[in-house]
Amino acid sequence: MGGAAEPPLPIPFTMVGCRNGAAMSIVKVAAFAVSLDGYAAGPRQSLENPLGVRGTELMTWFFPTYTFRTAVIGGTDGEKGIDDGMAAAAMANNGAWILGRNMFGPVRGAWPDDTWKGWWGDTPPYHVPVFVLTHHARKPLEMKGGTIFHFVTDGIASALRQTKAAAGAKDVRIGGGTATVRQYLQAGAIDEIHLAVSPVVLGEGENLFAGLNLPQLGFTVAKTVRGEGATHVVLRKG
Amino acid sequence: MGGAAEPPLPIPFTMVGCRNGAAMSIVKVAAFAVSLDGYAAGPRQSLENPLGVRGTELMTWFFPTYTFRTAVIGGTDGEKGIDDGMAAAAMANNGAWILGRNMFGPVRGAWPDDTWKGWWGDTPPYHVPVFVLTHHARKPLEMKGGTIFHFVTDGIASALRQTKAAAGAKDVRIGGGTATVRQYLQAGAIDEIHLAVSPVVLGEGENLFAGLNLPQLGFTVAKTVRGEGATHVVLRKG
Repeated sequence: MGGAAEPPLPIPFTMVGCRNGAAMSIVKVAAFAVSLDGYAAGPRQSLENPLGVRGTELMTWFFPTYTFRTAVIGGTDGEKGIDDGMAAAAMANNGAWILGRNMFGPVRGAWPDDTWKGWWGDTPPYHVPVFVLTHHARKPLEMKGGTIFHFVTDGIASALRQTKAAAGAKDVRIGGGTATVRQYLQAGAIDEIHLAVSPVVLGEGENLFAGLNLPQLGFTVAKTVRGEGATHVVLRKG
Repeated sequence: MGGAAEPPLPIPFTMVGCRNGAAMSIVKVAAFAVSLDGYAAGPRQSLENPLGVRGTELMTWFFPTYTFRTAVIGGTDGEKGIDDGMAAAAMANNGAWILGRNMFGPVRGAWPDDTWKGWWGDTPPYHVPVFVLTHHARKPLEMKGGTIFHFVTDGIASALRQTKAAAGAKDVRIGGGTATVRQYLQAGAIDEIHLAVSPVVLGEGENLFAGLNLPQLGFTVAKTVRGEGATHVVLRKG
């Protein structure tokens, strides 16, 4: 996994900003929830607290939506308001995903065995290839419903290349966690960020913004959408 | 002006949280604008940029309101929507204000003379006593319309005592800037914070949240109001 000293990605990112013309593949962060004080996860992640302590409070806008209830937990109903519209848009056109290792699970260090298969049960909500950043090699893991977890040990640039190849004409979605999003932002690799700003303060945890200058990285706010449970903000380059 | 090492304020703050019963005086921050990335002002404040570079972008929700246009710049009309309702509430029941010195002006160090009289012209929008934190003594400055600027050189606790005495049964409003709000928050002196979260990213400037744990200081989100130009969030203790 790439550290702060890793050189800029050698990949040109010219396909930026415009989603109105012909379909074009972008690298995006979507439906990424942050607190008012900038935390995208609480502290002390564990098996009991996948999003860290109090982290689920960031997602209260998402849990009642039709998209969450049908696409993530296999239900048959849910609310179809503004928040759901943003959640559905975030799930659209994702050709492949990148996840940080902590987003994949609470296991640290070398994999003790192949028992851990993600937080999501037998049928994860991805249905496409998912590239997991890790320092520890592991065989690809094929799940039900089309999700295949690939474990990438040679850095974020390599992971992005593989993910773009897998995504084809569709988008690359960087799912998180915070450290992974920050690394790709700092590398200049992300075209669009959709933040769901939740009306809570956490006070501690994984801060998305600390030390990160989004305008300097080229981002401006392209759109603000006020949902029932969160304020959605879309930032784009250019 | 009190530094980080100043002991906790010796004043009891028991009158917290409830505004529904009999009128009770609180210490409040109101209509305090922050960017999505937590900045309450841009960098490099100057005569030309009272809110720092790009700082006025934080206030685009405020400028068209009836409250701003009539109470601040002496106009006769303005928009009367949700943002205006929040702006008007922020101007109500203020018995006296506290301002940090940079909120009062761009002058640094000793006062060269009495020329600088605030950013607001002959008739500032306060109309009550305003206590300005400074390291440099200066005689009180009486303006038109009832505003008197008092210059306090013996620390934030003293300033708060004097402001509370001047406010009587009304509220103490801490107007800013960021460093002043942070000092009073850390001292446990603030009962209520109304933030206007503006849909912009600044990337640099005066960060309200950095190193500040609002839940640990007792705050939770009491109310969220989505205005035309900003999302208003009211945090209270308890």
